[in-house]
Amino acid sequence: MQFGSGSKVPTISAEDRDRLTARYAPLAAAVRDLIDASLRTEADGAVVDDACAQVRAVTEALRAGGLSDAPGMRYVTGEPPTPWGNTVVGLRNPIAPPLAIRRDDDGRYRTDFHLGAPYEGPPGLVHGGVSALVLDHLLGEAASDGMTRPLYTGTITVKYLRGTPLGALRGEAWTHHREGVKTIARGHLCDAQGVTVEAEGVFILPAWARDPAPAGER
Amino acid sequence: MQFGSGSKVPTISAEDRDRLTARYAPLAAAVRDLIDASLRTEADGAVVDDACAQVRAVTEALRAGGLSDAPGMRYVTGEPPTPWGNTVVGLRNPIAPPLAIRRDDDGRYRTDFHLGAPYEGPPGLVHGGVSALVLDHLLGEAASDGMTRPLYTGTITVKYLRGTPLGALRGEAWTHHREGVKTIARGHLCDAQGVTVEAEGVFILPAWARDPAPAGER
Repeated sequence: MQFGSGSKVPTISAEDRDRLTARYAPLAAAVRDLIDASLRTEADGAVVDDACAQVRAVTEALRAGGLSDAPGMRYVTGEPPTPWGNTVVGLRNPIAPPLAIRRDDDGRYRTDFHLGAPYEGPPGLVHGGVSALVLDHLLGEAASDGMTRPLYTGTITVKYLRGTPLGALRGEAWTHHREGVKTIARGHLCDAQGVTVEAEGVFILPAWARDPAPAGER
Repeated sequence: MQFGSGSKVPTISAEDRDRLTARYAPLAAAVRDLIDASLRTEADGAVVDDACAQVRAVTEALRAGGLSDAPGMRYVTGEPPTPWGNTVVGLRNPIAPPLAIRRDDDGRYRTDFHLGAPYEGPPGLVHGGVSALVLDHLLGEAASDGMTRPLYTGTITVKYLRGTPLGALRGEAWTHHREGVKTIARGHLCDAQGVTVEAEGVFILPAWARDPAPAGER
């Protein structure tokens, strides 16, 4: 994870952000349901051919409305960036579960979420790489204090204790310690029986965000 | 990654596998295009409302055809399993890029693929967790010799050298060494300028697949 360096990222007002979220988030939610149905359907060939034709027509109509080259993030003055298109938390991104991450009073970042068939690796289990994806994001959120500090991921180590079943899951992450330009974050995923996957990440403050040398030393 | 222990996984003939792939893979491909268009569209409210209604209607039609509880994998006698629904390589899974992984003559596993807007984290860059997801899968493929050996992931460490741009990418993985029940695999992702992310994974042979004790010692 990294942010804050992009001059390409459009800045919008909080009002526009809310208005456009209200317009586009329901579309992402509808496509999320379609992803699940298209993966799991046992419909016959005629139904599937029909579905293909309709999906292509909708795609064309949406493309005709214009396609953004920078759909992913919007800056809103005075707030952390809105990661609209993000793979993990983006409300506009149909492949995001999407995770809603909260900061609890104990300073830990937590998220309760559900992973269905599209996130499967081994039969009935979450793909190990999806657990890594979720933990990478969650640890980044903790290390950056909810994206209020710029940083990028140096390394992440993910340890699999047992298979993570598809279904209801919780993720948790916290800052373990800070040391110069490094922040160490830790976290895990759990199901109802306890922890399934643990992770530790080393996050780095980018050079452009470090304290400048005093003027006389430049 | 783990496979081979699931009695829940249906076995089908190679013919049925091919026939059903021909039926359903184009639907997944069409939904993949829709995912990109719905994330990037700048269409106005009326077009988006219309798109939502049509997407919901297609979803209903596909659900009415019956939904499989085990969409993810099929065994075909004498072949490695077909990971139809897999998040990374599943031809039936719209959120899979999907990666086509080949084994080259040097024994390394490689894949050339393209990641677009749905896989974005920082502006213009692949989400760090998506790089971890792809590498987890690719290292698993190498460690398991193309899913011909059962194993599960113990740990994976991912090191980010620089941001990975969205677009054309290559992934590469190989078995570094085997030691008892452990297999160490290594790999990386590159863009045209070179390596962006490195990974090392420790994969474990499941207890059920280890050599049984001689009969007299059981």
